[in-house]
Amino acid sequence: MKFCSECAHPVELMVPAGDNRPRYVCVKCETIHYQNPKMVIGSIPVWERDGELKVLLCRRAIEPRYGFWTLPAGFMENNETTSAAAIRETEEEAGANIELGNLFTLLNVAQVHQVHMFYLATLRDLNFAPGEESLEVQLFTEAEIPWDELAFPTVHNTLEFFFADRARMRAGGSYGFHTQDINRPMRSPTGT
Amino acid sequence: MKFCSECAHPVELMVPAGDNRPRYVCVKCETIHYQNPKMVIGSIPVWERDGELKVLLCRRAIEPRYGFWTLPAGFMENNETTSAAAIRETEEEAGANIELGNLFTLLNVAQVHQVHMFYLATLRDLNFAPGEESLEVQLFTEAEIPWDELAFPTVHNTLEFFFADRARMRAGGSYGFHTQDINRPMRSPTGT
Repeated sequence: MKFCSECAHPVELMVPAGDNRPRYVCVKCETIHYQNPKMVIGSIPVWERDGELKVLLCRRAIEPRYGFWTLPAGFMENNETTSAAAIRETEEEAGANIELGNLFTLLNVAQVHQVHMFYLATLRDLNFAPGEESLEVQLFTEAEIPWDELAFPTVHNTLEFFFADRARMRAGGSYGFHTQDINRPMRSPTGT
Repeated sequence: MKFCSECAHPVELMVPAGDNRPRYVCVKCETIHYQNPKMVIGSIPVWERDGELKVLLCRRAIEPRYGFWTLPAGFMENNETTSAAAIRETEEEAGANIELGNLFTLLNVAQVHQVHMFYLATLRDLNFAPGEESLEVQLFTEAEIPWDELAFPTVHNTLEFFFADRARMRAGGSYGFHTQDINRPMRSPTGT
């Protein structure tokens, strides 16, 4: 940020009176330009038939992490709810119609000023297709998940939580809600 | 937003190529200025002794809702996690030291582009005091909660979820995690 978006005067980085953090401040019109974290919302779209469960992943057609696999997710927009964002992103990136379940994970990625959230979801049908931001979309069993080619730690860890809960559910119980702080926004190519 | 914060040229509201929503776009330097919802994070600070439970509320010294009671909460900052934001806001607004528990509620207030989250919390001591944004801070039993003088529906509903879970916990069980969409950002003076 270099100029005031209200009056076009150059902004200065300073701690406003009564505040304790540096902000971009316009010394002409006195607007304080706060900057806050953003929410990235997605879903875990599941297709289950004859005792076999598969999860829908998208291969990214955009940077960052072009060519890597992700759960459908994207930035939440103004005037929508977190659940509406999950449904919209799943439709936009995977062309998929889902029945949305509960919020399943909330993961902080403080270094990039983001909070990622993923909802449980059930595919209504198999009429999915890649959107503009996806190279391909594909169903994976747990054994087929491309763990070393996942785009982000939040996707990796959400899938880990998901399959761990599924394993526990075989002995009764239900899905939990999981929160976690991630200290590294990107995965290395080897997934470590 | 009237001017580009990168080059000071006037912005125009238009749907960028490949997008489906109007954005503020700079036609000179081509920056797209996305606007996204913000997170408001707080806590439910509890003091429990001899079987009596009290919750710490703050009376607001700022607009909106000057003079009304709220749980300590505020806008999440860049470079912090949701739990760090809850601890910081509780310290800033109520001067209170808390042991943070689990995330308890996540409430969408889409009309004002906000997502509110409240964490369970236990007061470490009774050394609390109003911060700059609070007129006073006070402990309330369930019977004493000023339901008609609460600042926001998200605070009202979080307290309702909290006492409902407490009632259920007398018959065993534990706190849940609650999500809700709020269609009205402010409460009327009569609380309806």
